[in-house]
Amino acid sequence: MIKYPRPKRESKEKINIVKKGNMGLTLEEDLNLTNNYYIDNDIAFIYKKPTPIHVVRVSNNNTKQMRIVDAFYKEKSTTDYNGIYNGYYIDFDAKETNSKTSIPLKNVASHQARHLENVYQSGGISFLIIHFKVHDKYFIIPQKELRKYYNDNKKSIPYEDFLKLNLEIPFKLNPRLDYLTIIFNNIEKFLK
Amino acid sequence: MIKYPRPKRESKEKINIVKKGNMGLTLEEDLNLTNNYYIDNDIAFIYKKPTPIHVVRVSNNNTKQMRIVDAFYKEKSTTDYNGIYNGYYIDFDAKETNSKTSIPLKNVASHQARHLENVYQSGGISFLIIHFKVHDKYFIIPQKELRKYYNDNKKSIPYEDFLKLNLEIPFKLNPRLDYLTIIFNNIEKFLK
Repeated sequence: MIKYPRPKRESKEKINIVKKGNMGLTLEEDLNLTNNYYIDNDIAFIYKKPTPIHVVRVSNNNTKQMRIVDAFYKEKSTTDYNGIYNGYYIDFDAKETNSKTSIPLKNVASHQARHLENVYQSGGISFLIIHFKVHDKYFIIPQKELRKYYNDNKKSIPYEDFLKLNLEIPFKLNPRLDYLTIIFNNIEKFLK
Repeated sequence: MIKYPRPKRESKEKINIVKKGNMGLTLEEDLNLTNNYYIDNDIAFIYKKPTPIHVVRVSNNNTKQMRIVDAFYKEKSTTDYNGIYNGYYIDFDAKETNSKTSIPLKNVASHQARHLENVYQSGGISFLIIHFKVHDKYFIIPQKELRKYYNDNKKSIPYEDFLKLNLEIPFKLNPRLDYLTIIFNNIEKFLK
């Protein structure tokens, strides 16, 4: 199943930014701001991958800018974010849920789950960032922990498990979601 | 300057494959086959990043598949390929040249050059793969070497320098361009 991004979101969100004084950004936008902070300060080089699109037809139409006039979204082969921090390969996906009590594992596509495990087995640092919107809380779950739910054939991860895991990311002004500090203060929870 | 991919290439190349018995693939296709070999054999998890596209308008048009009807290519922020091998962060770009004598450095966009240097400084393995089409030879140039040309304000890298560097990738059936073996037999040429 391909999850389609919503291409009109960007302009909507821009209106929101103006109205609410930079509050109400999406998880993706908060993570992009965080990653930009890391890049601008030479801390880490982690980027969101572009959405894969299959281009069918382009049109030059006598203008300077080539336009794509027919295309469709393809399925992602990996996760959304990857990069390097201090010699470590970093790889993760970010998910939001409206549930109070748990995050269903079906939110993670099977090829994403496989990719997180491949990275973990190769000695990288792979994880999910989960935003529980109702609680307005952000958590990291390392692959080292996540794989247990798959091995036990669990369908979801309860909210309380995140509280026990003790890898909450506090929301700050800048960087917004300083996930690297949380990870490297708890590095033993991530490495094989 | 944004380099536009050629969206009609895929089908053309498919015809070539049939005609020439799998010869005459592009560098990108040979690298994708190589990376697929690494993935299928659990050796490394290195992927080509999708081309960044800004979607302006989509149409549902009463069909099941959402189509993109207006979009344009955006500038890449990094390189084309990245991933993990045995705990190492791997990051590179691939360039082809028709020149017999050298590869001009203008083939590497300034943000790509900066990204390769950022990865190198962070303890990752960053490099270029260069295909000299006239000689039909493939070479790796590590960032540790590449940065010297930038520091010396060089405009290009002579073909003889690649021969001296001794990091040629032999073209084989499977994997096509086994660049990881060359790198890890010469790892001191790559690490900071």
